[in-house]
Amino acid sequence: MQLPDYDDVCRAHERIAPWIHRTPILTSATFDAMTGARLFFKCENFQKTGAFKSRGAVNAVFGLEEADAQRGVATHSSGNHGMALARAAACRGIECTVVMPETAPRAKVDAVRGYGGQVVFCAPRNTARQQTLDEIVAASGANVVPPYDDARVIAGQGTCAKELLEDVEDLDIVIAPIGGGGLISGTALSCRALSPHTQVLAGEPANADDAYRSVKAGERLVEDAPDTIADGLKASLGELNWGIVIRDVDDILLASEEAIIETMRLIWQRMKIIVEPSCAVPLAAILHHPERFADQRVGVILTGGNVDLERLPWL
Amino acid sequence: MQLPDYDDVCRAHERIAPWIHRTPILTSATFDAMTGARLFFKCENFQKTGAFKSRGAVNAVFGLEEADAQRGVATHSSGNHGMALARAAACRGIECTVVMPETAPRAKVDAVRGYGGQVVFCAPRNTARQQTLDEIVAASGANVVPPYDDARVIAGQGTCAKELLEDVEDLDIVIAPIGGGGLISGTALSCRALSPHTQVLAGEPANADDAYRSVKAGERLVEDAPDTIADGLKASLGELNWGIVIRDVDDILLASEEAIIETMRLIWQRMKIIVEPSCAVPLAAILHHPERFADQRVGVILTGGNVDLERLPWL
Repeated sequence: MQLPDYDDVCRAHERIAPWIHRTPILTSATFDAMTGARLFFKCENFQKTGAFKSRGAVNAVFGLEEADAQRGVATHSSGNHGMALARAAACRGIECTVVMPETAPRAKVDAVRGYGGQVVFCAPRNTARQQTLDEIVAASGANVVPPYDDARVIAGQGTCAKELLEDVEDLDIVIAPIGGGGLISGTALSCRALSPHTQVLAGEPANADDAYRSVKAGERLVEDAPDTIADGLKASLGELNWGIVIRDVDDILLASEEAIIETMRLIWQRMKIIVEPSCAVPLAAILHHPERFADQRVGVILTGGNVDLERLPWL
Repeated sequence: MQLPDYDDVCRAHERIAPWIHRTPILTSATFDAMTGARLFFKCENFQKTGAFKSRGAVNAVFGLEEADAQRGVATHSSGNHGMALARAAACRGIECTVVMPETAPRAKVDAVRGYGGQVVFCAPRNTARQQTLDEIVAASGANVVPPYDDARVIAGQGTCAKELLEDVEDLDIVIAPIGGGGLISGTALSCRALSPHTQVLAGEPANADDAYRSVKAGERLVEDAPDTIADGLKASLGELNWGIVIRDVDDILLASEEAIIETMRLIWQRMKIIVEPSCAVPLAAILHHPERFADQRVGVILTGGNVDLERLPWL
């Protein structure tokens, strides 16, 4: 099993630069005061398609050989990766099919279709979506672009932390959410290469804590259909992602559902930006462990802003 | 009646610089495609206290002579000005009393108190709040800092367009909401001085169209208790503001309640930022008059982001 490395991240960054935003980094006097830390928020909610997923998707799509590309791409996704892949495919002018759980927020389904992607629904379980995808690929020959367990995707997601470390000096800690592990493993590659003293932490919903338990157990544990408001973090760690997480991630911190919702609401209220529940997990973990973060310079990756504005979790 | 001028704006900018953010300017491929214009959004929702009002309030408070300042400040405000004045007073270490309509969003009342301001409620009519304020000043000797009809406040608000014009070259149009007229009159001062060819437009709720009707009539008309979702724009034009508007503002465009709500929702959904209903008025007007904005470079001032997250207008 060949893990991607920082060279792959650098090649990805060159390849995707014309198609993504270099997103801004915001600070918040309120959250600095609440945490005692100095926080730098990397705002991937402002990224193309509203999430960091555009980085990995564009890298995978534009890395395909021309003959392969003509058969199109396909994936399964609870939403943001599907949207990102649909747009990346549209940018290259090829077809895209996305398998989505029936429970996916309507806004995300509409958005995949809005970018020209074709949506196929499946039961909301990790096992069901893989099976549905296999059937589609058998029929069409499409190139599968997995949402996280893929070297091209990991390298693409790593460009986010690369930008963060280039733009903010001397970060003591970088923290990102962990679900399937695409973002955190790419983040770890960039941190280890660019700033070896920087701790790499992951925030995970306590209700979907497969990564936390995997690290404790020393082996990758898979969880089917966890229940959390952070719908972007329901997936279990992929194989490649596990290989990087167990090597390069320093710790995983958990956040309760209540803390995720309250922190999401606080981010909206105080920073005036729209973030998804998944985004709130790292800050919720920071607020729950103030002693670990006091007086530290902390980079926090805000992953996306695709929320169904009809259904806010605190209403 | 001595109108403030651009020199006052420049002096205000120096005075307030340590206490306010130079807010970022965002662009949106989505809204550029929808309008055919090139739009530059000046994000005062990211300003201290969540609105441009901090500019005028800080200018007024820090411009007071020391002996006057010790008697504190007072004002009436539907919310953002009160919050801004309370914070500005706290920054200087003096007292602040804010008269607010009973109908003000709870989040704004709490915020005024959170900054250390004292809130006194009144009936939700323009006449009632002036009377309540007069009583407070008679008792305490506090310095009144009006929300808009005040040279110090207008000069402070003008710093927003000054920054916009310094940061974005060759704007054909600058558009801002109009309520009491503090922002638009300051905006006009900066535009006329820095970029005389730039058109200055105002967006106004059709349900609170006193400025529109005043310009048509050639005299300042006052409206009591208009009903609009854009609660920051219920006030009628002040005298100083009228003097600048009739001289320097090129046109006023109206927006319906339905368009304001739908545009606010679109800004949240596509730009991933939290803006108040008042913010949506200029963009709603642009979307309603595409022929006036096509191929133009347009600066749009987004005024604030203080929303009660329990009560969203589209739910």
